[in-house]
Amino acid sequence: MRVRNKPWADKYIKDHEAYIVVDPQKWLGKWQSRFEKQQPLNVEVGTGKGRFIIEMAKAHPDVNYIGVELQKSVIATALRTFMDEPVPNLQFVLTDGANLDEIFLENEIKKIFLNFSDPWPKKRHAKRRLTSPGFLKTYQHVLDADGDIEFKTDNRGLFEYTLITMNNFPLKFDYVSLDLHHSPEAVDNIETEYEQKFSPKGPIYKLVAHFMA
Amino acid sequence: MRVRNKPWADKYIKDHEAYIVVDPQKWLGKWQSRFEKQQPLNVEVGTGKGRFIIEMAKAHPDVNYIGVELQKSVIATALRTFMDEPVPNLQFVLTDGANLDEIFLENEIKKIFLNFSDPWPKKRHAKRRLTSPGFLKTYQHVLDADGDIEFKTDNRGLFEYTLITMNNFPLKFDYVSLDLHHSPEAVDNIETEYEQKFSPKGPIYKLVAHFMA
Repeated sequence: MRVRNKPWADKYIKDHEAYIVVDPQKWLGKWQSRFEKQQPLNVEVGTGKGRFIIEMAKAHPDVNYIGVELQKSVIATALRTFMDEPVPNLQFVLTDGANLDEIFLENEIKKIFLNFSDPWPKKRHAKRRLTSPGFLKTYQHVLDADGDIEFKTDNRGLFEYTLITMNNFPLKFDYVSLDLHHSPEAVDNIETEYEQKFSPKGPIYKLVAHFMA
Repeated sequence: MRVRNKPWADKYIKDHEAYIVVDPQKWLGKWQSRFEKQQPLNVEVGTGKGRFIIEMAKAHPDVNYIGVELQKSVIATALRTFMDEPVPNLQFVLTDGANLDEIFLENEIKKIFLNFSDPWPKKRHAKRRLTSPGFLKTYQHVLDADGDIEFKTDNRGLFEYTLITMNNFPLKFDYVSLDLHHSPEAVDNIETEYEQKFSPKGPIYKLVAHFMA
């Protein structure tokens, strides 16, 4: 997502450091101390404006959530939305998803969410896709043995690519929908901002998969 | 495909026994003798009215093809179309795809095509789907180590099911399209009768996958 610079972002982030981390390496092995309760940890990579992870945190108070986002202006917007009605089981982290294995311990995460990631359609940018083999290797390191990845996109090319990279890695598929909003599972689906806007234009694809021991 | 009984089918099949086999067990280990040349063997399971396999045989004279179909009236129609312009590298076989491992030797087949198979949407009929684990096991037996399966359907539920069964088996994915007719590969695509009729109504899905050694 390309966004305008937001002059208020720096100060807003600094003023809310109980809920957002800008120096994540310092928190390696200590994430649970930032939450009210010690409970399973789910992470969204590329959390955008935050609707998905905020709604998830409200719906599942027995899970701790971290929303990771690379762009300061974007995560500041997510944080501001969150502050309207903060909950103690959600934290934001300003960092690159590629660093996940530097800020989380092995097996520390129960579930990783990837929602409407940048498709990077050019072949020479394939390595930047959040479902490229390099990223999958990072996720494998930090995911619990019973953990899984939940991936949603409206981008056909990215979904085709991901079906192949995850299959080839290999990950084992648990769930596939080629039109999530017209599937029985739609009732439990929490939509991102992007998803609310673009789902009328075509199908939303979803894949749930886990690494094999 | 449910079809009307065709009274002429029996006699027509009997009159063209150089091109169609109704007692396939007898040909175990001897299929190549039915063709003009000994060359790689590709098989379509559920060949329907035959357009796909007939066009494939014409386009690839260096490959031998067998079209397998369970319904006599349907295969008789395929045979009649074929007889308008017969080629020496295509044979039809009236039998159930579930018997593939009784009529072909281990590793005998280079490629298996599954096109617009019956989706059997009810869960209790899942075993009848041509991409259910039982069928995949049969294909694995008769497919060459370098061989693969090419699967096309317009049925979303069947494609979702197949992505999971093939991934879980496990097969390795080589190609996935969620809208074949709007993919670069569309130019080489040979359409079935069904595909010509139904593709304007929604996307055609395609998966190419191989078993692992």
